[in-house]
Order: sequence, then structure tokens, then C-alpha cells
Amino acid sequence: MLLQQLFASRTQRMKASEIRELLKLLNRPGLLSFAGGIPDPALFPAAEFSAAFQDCLTPERQSEALQYSLSEGYLPLREWIRGEMARMGVVCDVDNILITSGSQQALDYLGKLFLSPNDTALVGWPTYLGALAAFNAYEPRYDQLNPGGNRSALSYRQAAEAAGSQVKFAYLSPDFANPTGQTLSQQDRDALLDLSEDLGCAIVEDGAYQALRYDGDQIPSILGLEIARRGDLELCRTIYCGSFSKTLSPGLRLGWVVAAKPVIAQMVLMKQAADLHSATLNQMAVHQVAERCFETHVAQLRQAYGNRRDAMLAALQSHMPQGITWTRPEGGMFVWLTLPAHIDAAALLVRALDEENIAFVPGQAFFADGNGANTLRLSFSVLAPEAIHSGVERLGRLLQQA
Amino acid sequence: MLLQQLFASRTQRMKASEIRELLKLLNRPGLLSFAGGIPDPALFPAAEFSAAFQDCLTPERQSEALQYSLSEGYLPLREWIRGEMARMGVVCDVDNILITSGSQQALDYLGKLFLSPNDTALVGWPTYLGALAAFNAYEPRYDQLNPGGNRSALSYRQAAEAAGSQVKFAYLSPDFANPTGQTLSQQDRDALLDLSEDLGCAIVEDGAYQALRYDGDQIPSILGLEIARRGDLELCRTIYCGSFSKTLSPGLRLGWVVAAKPVIAQMVLMKQAADLHSATLNQMAVHQVAERCFETHVAQLRQAYGNRRDAMLAALQSHMPQGITWTRPEGGMFVWLTLPAHIDAAALLVRALDEENIAFVPGQAFFADGNGANTLRLSFSVLAPEAIHSGVERLGRLLQQA
Repeated sequence: MLLQQLFASRTQRMKASEIRELLKLLNRPGLLSFAGGIPDPALFPAAEFSAAFQDCLTPERQSEALQYSLSEGYLPLREWIRGEMARMGVVCDVDNILITSGSQQALDYLGKLFLSPNDTALVGWPTYLGALAAFNAYEPRYDQLNPGGNRSALSYRQAAEAAGSQVKFAYLSPDFANPTGQTLSQQDRDALLDLSEDLGCAIVEDGAYQALRYDGDQIPSILGLEIARRGDLELCRTIYCGSFSKTLSPGLRLGWVVAAKPVIAQMVLMKQAADLHSATLNQMAVHQVAERCFETHVAQLRQAYGNRRDAMLAALQSHMPQGITWTRPEGGMFVWLTLPAHIDAAALLVRALDEENIAFVPGQAFFADGNGANTLRLSFSVLAPEAIHSGVERLGRLLQQA
Repeated sequence: MLLQQLFASRTQRMKASEIRELLKLLNRPGLLSFAGGIPDPALFPAAEFSAAFQDCLTPERQSEALQYSLSEGYLPLREWIRGEMARMGVVCDVDNILITSGSQQALDYLGKLFLSPNDTALVGWPTYLGALAAFNAYEPRYDQLNPGGNRSALSYRQAAEAAGSQVKFAYLSPDFANPTGQTLSQQDRDALLDLSEDLGCAIVEDGAYQALRYDGDQIPSILGLEIARRGDLELCRTIYCGSFSKTLSPGLRLGWVVAAKPVIAQMVLMKQAADLHSATLNQMAVHQVAERCFETHVAQLRQAYGNRRDAMLAALQSHMPQGITWTRPEGGMFVWLTLPAHIDAAALLVRALDEENIAFVPGQAFFADGNGANTLRLSFSVLAPEAIHSGVERLGRLLQQA
């Protein structure tokens, strides 16, 4: 094909994702899937959205709802987010907030903002593979972020310099991360702030799952801790990415970024050039639904997903053979399994689909260094507790033969 | 600010746009604005959208409407677009179509797909400034696309080679272009296809205003002409960008790209990494509204906007002093004025706001080479004919003193 010869070099880093290919299998009859990291559609606040979209399309409001709007986002929604961030200990102004088309877009824009080819991004081994996909378009190198580990700023700097590179940011999801479900302790968050100060790099804090805590005490966000430390968001290096995808609806594609004003101002210019603004009507409807039922709706989600998390942990306890370990998430949607070193999770998936009609995500795609062949991710978000028990039992049977 | 030191070099090419700053003035009481290039909200098919959003949020459909969906876009909408493209003479498959969040996003993605720093994009002097903004993020150089002019492929290639560059694509809006309102003749479209073949570069055809023709015969799209020439879309170098912003609603942010399958496949990967997909509900609602009333609604738009175009051309004829020339668009939303060389349109705007409370867009921002200080863009899309007459009369008064 002629045009492919004209593609920019960055396209070589854009590969089909394993999760995406897997999602195509989700319609197999009877498949019991732990693969998707998606919210349960039965729990969407659909009646509230139906009412909200009607209210936004009345004759008084339809001209605004269907028209172009500001790249920064719908002001009442940014004001609602300001209130929500304040409840999390992040005091900010509406000018510190940009509405994005999901937090995935925020990750793309942050890659675009910071990363020139060969710049370094620190990411977990494993990390959210959508973050790797977003950053890859800007051709970075990666180094391993290991909060709680003992690697010094100096060692990161030396590794970057040896590669002719500079560390631009550390990316992580500190609460119930995708894929591991793990949460960073406050001590490790503080250590990460120290590291970013020593390295002179930014921190990209992905709060996509932050609202979905099922037990344990909430830990302040990294941005909240940094504001407490420096006294003012304008002095902070942390950029917080929030999302309505896991709380209200992923299909409406709305998230937000909170950061110092010069960062937001630059990202507003970027968004203006890249897609003008996120859908006006969706912002108005999400604002209305958030105003009316965010707290009570999220409480319902926590109850439902928490029960499923409990079911999965109990089933793993009952059905996993020896030699297999897993995380015990306090929230989110995922449990992460580490298999004995000789078991390849991708090969296991083929057998799981064939022999047990179950699906999961092999872990290797979440590793920027290509390791993790003996890991896998299970999502408990869309299945009833009985299905979770049945699926984990089948997985255990398979692993006993592996 | 600490973080600004970490920004990638591409951010230096992202500047605030003149149009954007101007839009902030639109709420001035009594302002008569020819500035915005926006559809008239009174003409939105709001009742149809209200019904469509309700229909998409019934219990049977809400789970799909509010959930994640495929990066390619909602299949029934892509099927509708396939039919619409076929009516334009572009026979394609749904796998030749990607749904984007407005055609602005298509321009960003095409920059990302093709442009490495210092690659050459051919653009009109002037051209759509949002295209320049989108491409600027990828740090290209520009050369002047002048269809109908006599510049040879060799001269473009030599200019690029002298700059250590390669021509990747030519960008243009062949029908009623923003900002000039001008339409490319079929002969010039054929010559452009010859040029792209000689240069081995792509053509990005921006069809944002294509449906809004008020008189004259429709000219086949560049992609349609190329398919006729080569016999198969898969052999074509032209990439067509369509939009629902000017026909149904800009606030819902939906557009599309039609191209050979390897191009679409690469752009799907890009979209997956950049924002996963465009809002599911919006795609479903736009599909329903397009199915039910696209043709009749667009016919109404053509009638209304055509009357305003007529009013503006008549008013210009009546009120412009000698030495001022303007385009006579067969469609779209814009008339382009060229003033005597000594008049600076940006300075004129300051006086226009102060003395006559009217606004327009000075033309310089549309020129990649910084020329065009004596040009300006008038939009007739949101004003009643009487307001157009009054505003043009005031502009004429101002120009008589300039």
C-alpha cells in the first residue's frame, strides 16, 4: 500500500492491543469472561441519564447543548469537579480543570505535552496498557517505577542519561490500579513525591478507579499530599486525571485533568487543536446526573462491586492450587494472579477458551519490558457472585492440570 | 513554572487562536458578529435529537448506549455513512470508515499519522486555521498549495529536499472552503490528483461544508474522482474527512474518515490509544436522526443559509467602497474580503468593535506564511438577512474612513 510508506515513525509503536482482540470474543455463547475491565451496564444510572438528556434538550437549553462550546469544558461541570476534588483534599480553581473525552484522552494529551522521542516515562511493571499505548505515540523510552522499592533518583537519572534521555514524568494509578488492583500506601506516595522532586519530573496520577473503594481507609491522593506539602497547587508537579467512566458511564467519554494553571492552559490549546472540545450535551447531562445522584450512585456501585470482589477472593481461596498468588484489592475491578514461572498465561488462555469457555487477560501486555508471561488479570466487575465462583473453579481446574 | 521546562518542543507551535479569543467577545450586548463559523442553533434538529436520545436510553438500548464501544465507531452509523458516500460517488466498505470526534479530530490524527518534524504539508495560503493548529503539533513545515496555479511537482520536491524534508500530504477543503468560501473546479481537482501522483503524497480532503451547496452543480469529491481514475478505493491516495457539525450538530462532536483500509486500520489503533472511541450514545442518536431526516433537514439548511449568503453578497455590493474585492461562494458559511494593501484587518477589527460593535475574523491567522494582513473573513451563517445588511453597511462605513 502506497500510503503506508508515508506513515510517521511513531506509527511503528502503535500495535493492536491484546485486550481489544479479546473483547471481540465476548459475544461467544456461554463465555464466562473475566477479561473486560468494564463497568456492569446493569448498574448504569440510566433513568437519571434519560431524564438529564431530556432536560438538556428542552427548547431553552437545546441551542447550547448541540452547539460548539469552550475547549476547557462546560463550566458547571468544572465547578462540580472542583467541589468533588475539594472533598478529596485537592483545593483548586475551575482554571485548574480541563474536561477530556475520558481519562484516556488525558493520557494521550500528557504524552503529547511532555514526551519527545526518547524521553523517559517511569511506569510500573506492570501498568495500565492503555497508558503505554497512549504514550507510545510519542516514542518514549520506559524505566521501571517501583514505589516502595529502593531505587534512588540518582539511579534513574543515570539510566536516563546513559540513554541520552531525560525523565519527564512518572505515571501510576495509586488506588486499585489496573491491572493489579493494588493501592499505594501513603508512605510510598510521599516517597514518590520525594523522587519527583529529586528528579525534577512530573507525576501523572491516574484516579480512574479512585471512587470505587470497598474497604479500608481512603488514602489522600498524591496531588492532595503534594498540595499539603507545598501549600499551593500552582507549585505542584502532580497532574491528576479523573474519569466518569467507572462511576457514571464510560460510553459518554468524559474525564478531567487537574493541574497547575500553566499546564491546563497548554492542554486547552492542545485540545482546541485536537478535537475542539468534548461533547457539550454529554457534559451538561453528566453534570446534571452528578449533581443529583453521584454520592448515592457510587455507594450502590461500591456495594455491588464489593460483593463481587469478596466472591472472587473467596473463590480464589477455595479453588486455586498451590503455587499461585494473587492480590487482595481494596477497590476497583481487578485481581492479579501470579502463576508458577513455567506457566505461560497466553497459552493458558487458549486452553481456557477451548476447554472451559472462560476468558481473562494474560499479563504480559501490561509490562513495558515484555516480562510477566506468568501473570494474568481477572476482572470481577460484570459477573454475579455465582458466576465468579463457577469461573474461578474452572480456572482452578485448568491450573491444576497446567 | 517548573513543569513548563519539561514540555516537549511541539508545544512551542501551539498558540492561542485568534478565533478563539474572538469567540469570548460574542456575548457583548448588541454585538453583530460575522466572526464565528458556527451553525445557527435555531436550525438544529433539536426535536429529532430529543426523541433520538430518548429512544437510545430505553431499557433495551441503554446498556449499549452508555457502555464502551468499538474504536472504529458504531456500525449502523458507519453503514449510514457508507450509503451517503455512495450517493457522492464514493463506493466503500464499512472497514474504510472510522468515526471521529468531529473532523477536527480527523485532522489531528492525520497529522499524527503522517507528519514527523520537518515533514512538509501543502496547504492553501490561506487555509482552515484549525488544520494548521492540528498539524502544528507534529512540527511540519508548510509549502503553498495552489491548485490551478502552475507550480510543478518538481518545484515542490526541490523545495522540500532543499529543506531536508518530504511532502507527506496536501490538505484542502475543495467545497466552499473555510475561510475563502471558494470551490475547486473539477479540472483543478484532476490536476491535484496528478500532482499527488507525481509527488507520491497523500491528499487530505476536508468535506466539512460539502453538503451546504446553495447553487451551481455539485462537483465530484476528489476521492470520488480518484476512485473513478484508479478503479478501487484501496489504490487511492486521497483521505476524505466528513463531519456532522455543519449538518446536524457540532456539539455532539462527530465526524468520519474514509480511506483505504490500511490507513483506517492504523487510525483505529491511534484512536484506541488516544480516546478509545467517540461517545457511543451520540453515535446512536446521530445515526437515528440521520436515518430519519438528513436529506430534508439539509435541504432546510441550504434554503436558510442560501438566503443569508444572498443577503451578504447583495449588502457587499451595496455598501463596500471601491478597492475591496470578495468571493462569491456557492455554499458554506463564509465570504472572504481582500482590502487595499495598506489596510490592516486586525487594526480594523479593533475599530469595528469600538465604533460599530461588529466583529469579523482578520485573515492573517489563516496564512501559514504570516501574510494576508489585508484580508478578513465574514460569516453569514447565524444572522438574519436584515442584520447582515446592517452589519455590512457598518463595515462599509468603517472602510470608507480607513
